[in-house]
Amino acid sequence: MLVPGQLNPSPRVLLGPGPSDVHPRVLTAMATPLIGHLDPQFLAIMNETQEMLRAVFQTANHLTFPVSATGSAGMETCVVNLIEPGDRMVVCVKGVFGQRMTDVAQRAGAAVTTIERPWGEVFELDPLRDVLKKVRPKVLGIVHAETSTGAWQPAEELGRLCHELDTLLLLDTVTSLGGVPVAIDDWGVDAVYSGTQKCLSCPPGLSPVSFSPRAVETINRRKTKVQSWYLDMTMVQRYWGEERFYHHTAPITMIYALRESLRLVLEEGLPARWARHMKNHQALKAGLAALRITYAAAEGRQLPMLNAVRIPAGVNDLATRKRLLDEFGIEIGGGLGDFKGKAWRIGLMGYSSRPNNVLVFLAALEQGLAAQGVKIEMGAGVTAANRIYAGG
Amino acid sequence: MLVPGQLNPSPRVLLGPGPSDVHPRVLTAMATPLIGHLDPQFLAIMNETQEMLRAVFQTANHLTFPVSATGSAGMETCVVNLIEPGDRMVVCVKGVFGQRMTDVAQRAGAAVTTIERPWGEVFELDPLRDVLKKVRPKVLGIVHAETSTGAWQPAEELGRLCHELDTLLLLDTVTSLGGVPVAIDDWGVDAVYSGTQKCLSCPPGLSPVSFSPRAVETINRRKTKVQSWYLDMTMVQRYWGEERFYHHTAPITMIYALRESLRLVLEEGLPARWARHMKNHQALKAGLAALRITYAAAEGRQLPMLNAVRIPAGVNDLATRKRLLDEFGIEIGGGLGDFKGKAWRIGLMGYSSRPNNVLVFLAALEQGLAAQGVKIEMGAGVTAANRIYAGG
Repeated sequence: MLVPGQLNPSPRVLLGPGPSDVHPRVLTAMATPLIGHLDPQFLAIMNETQEMLRAVFQTANHLTFPVSATGSAGMETCVVNLIEPGDRMVVCVKGVFGQRMTDVAQRAGAAVTTIERPWGEVFELDPLRDVLKKVRPKVLGIVHAETSTGAWQPAEELGRLCHELDTLLLLDTVTSLGGVPVAIDDWGVDAVYSGTQKCLSCPPGLSPVSFSPRAVETINRRKTKVQSWYLDMTMVQRYWGEERFYHHTAPITMIYALRESLRLVLEEGLPARWARHMKNHQALKAGLAALRITYAAAEGRQLPMLNAVRIPAGVNDLATRKRLLDEFGIEIGGGLGDFKGKAWRIGLMGYSSRPNNVLVFLAALEQGLAAQGVKIEMGAGVTAANRIYAGG
Repeated sequence: MLVPGQLNPSPRVLLGPGPSDVHPRVLTAMATPLIGHLDPQFLAIMNETQEMLRAVFQTANHLTFPVSATGSAGMETCVVNLIEPGDRMVVCVKGVFGQRMTDVAQRAGAAVTTIERPWGEVFELDPLRDVLKKVRPKVLGIVHAETSTGAWQPAEELGRLCHELDTLLLLDTVTSLGGVPVAIDDWGVDAVYSGTQKCLSCPPGLSPVSFSPRAVETINRRKTKVQSWYLDMTMVQRYWGEERFYHHTAPITMIYALRESLRLVLEEGLPARWARHMKNHQALKAGLAALRITYAAAEGRQLPMLNAVRIPAGVNDLATRKRLLDEFGIEIGGGLGDFKGKAWRIGLMGYSSRPNNVLVFLAALEQGLAAQGVKIEMGAGVTAANRIYAGG
């Protein structure tokens, strides 16, 4: 066959729902030659990566490490290890990723009760308590940052509520980790998974997870084998624990990348990083407001790193996104599920969360809207955003 | 916390059972900035990668792509998609990876019949036929290159045998692909998985798989959902097929790496690559013979890329491997399972399969053995290997 030419993609500005732009230091770390997955040097790298993950998750959980696959596999890891066939699980659905968790749990043999909120909304404590009291599930699963709607689920009180009723709390932090506060121990989260390609700004390919001692005990007390060999924590924990017992070959280069991205997170500091995400969100939001573009999630519940906004009436979704991509190399996300064709998802995640990106995106969007004959005041979006930055 | 320093592992020569050394072109390809997993440019990269994978697998199978996880997940992908609870499966066990396949199949609910051969041996056709006739399984699973024993299972006739009896053939080519001939269509293989970190010399993290039309039909006719959401081909094939329908975020950088490693394979040409692996194996084998070190697998059944040899009497396994690593940066593998403490596994895979590595390894080994007081003729190994190269 004709061998394709050298890899040569034209540059992009990644402002979609992930992957985000990867910092140059992470890119070059991946060019580091490989060492073996049982090499003493690699074991030290694993320790450092786990220690930094604990810091970012704000947990002392011993079983904290990156699953060797993407975020959805992290979701599956948590579910198939905590659930045995017939176990009751409550899943909170307010977007695509809650739906996905329901599907994963059913495949694991859970007796699933779903509770739903309209897309863009979040769950309050009282109705949750009522369901937990009625169902008495082994596990409650909920998404912290729903990537399909941009809604920010308060999670501080969920652990206390679950533990009152002897339920384990499973939290999806795929999009939130590294962008807004995530405090696994303070919040009493028993199992958590995340992704690397969102606010950690590492390429996709790993899913950081963490299990509380209570969750580990539940897993080690299982009566049945975990249905997935690859994701079976009773075995994987022997490689990521003291023994370093071979299970499967670790994705070495991806762990190099995660290590470097975690170094960047901790060098910046978590509070500074959260503040940066919030500031760029506020600037973007001011700019969008000046263009009369509104958010899908309610005021006070809008995620700073994932801005899901309603596509204005009369605006062509695909044509707008194509122009952004073709003319400016800017990628934003379309709507998923219920929001298909109705929403844009503008990500300001990790290294992508920068004033440069906010300003150039707003300028490019203004141009795209004007070209479609949408009545806007050219310059209003950029100016409104710039005032936020100028105001300190 | 104190943030760890810059990544700075001391260089290694990877002559173990994988990962192998990665070509500099693959390392630098991974430093390419990311693009989105639904970007038209990325869809073209996916097409090119699939087309090259088909060439390397020697197949026209449409459903040919890299699973977003390491080789063991490729094994699990094949098993959980082909098997529904209660289906009969025969697994051929002659080392660790046949054992692993048994475990994976049982977790998928298969009624598993295992047949065994002593470690280091392979299966002949006639006894296999007898078992298939008796059990009439839906799937026969067998390992082409058993990484734990270095034994090379002939696979040319297995597909014909299976299809006579209406059985699907599942072949593990984790260690063989790119190092010895693998001809999926000619051999009638219905499902195959491999790894990237062996003879393709790409970092670990992906598992190339391919399914025959007969296997795809079996999967699409399933009565039950695949137990793994992440590995469910009925959904994943919609992303890797024409629709490009979002399932999970593809591991973009790893696909960049695989694409570059496949370019290197095809630029070299498959026959030239197989011949290179064989030549370096012959040189290593001549050198080891001169040091009176013998192979675990029978003559004629020894894999060129995975040289499993018996540790000579009186030689300290760990001390020898530690010296190779500390003094020369050379990693070789210890024994697994039945071979723990009894065998070394010397990999000459992909970019690691080079005369330089054969010669320096033999010299380093000679030094290590002499330092332990083992009676060898210093220089005999290197010279014997060098004669093979000099002889053309």
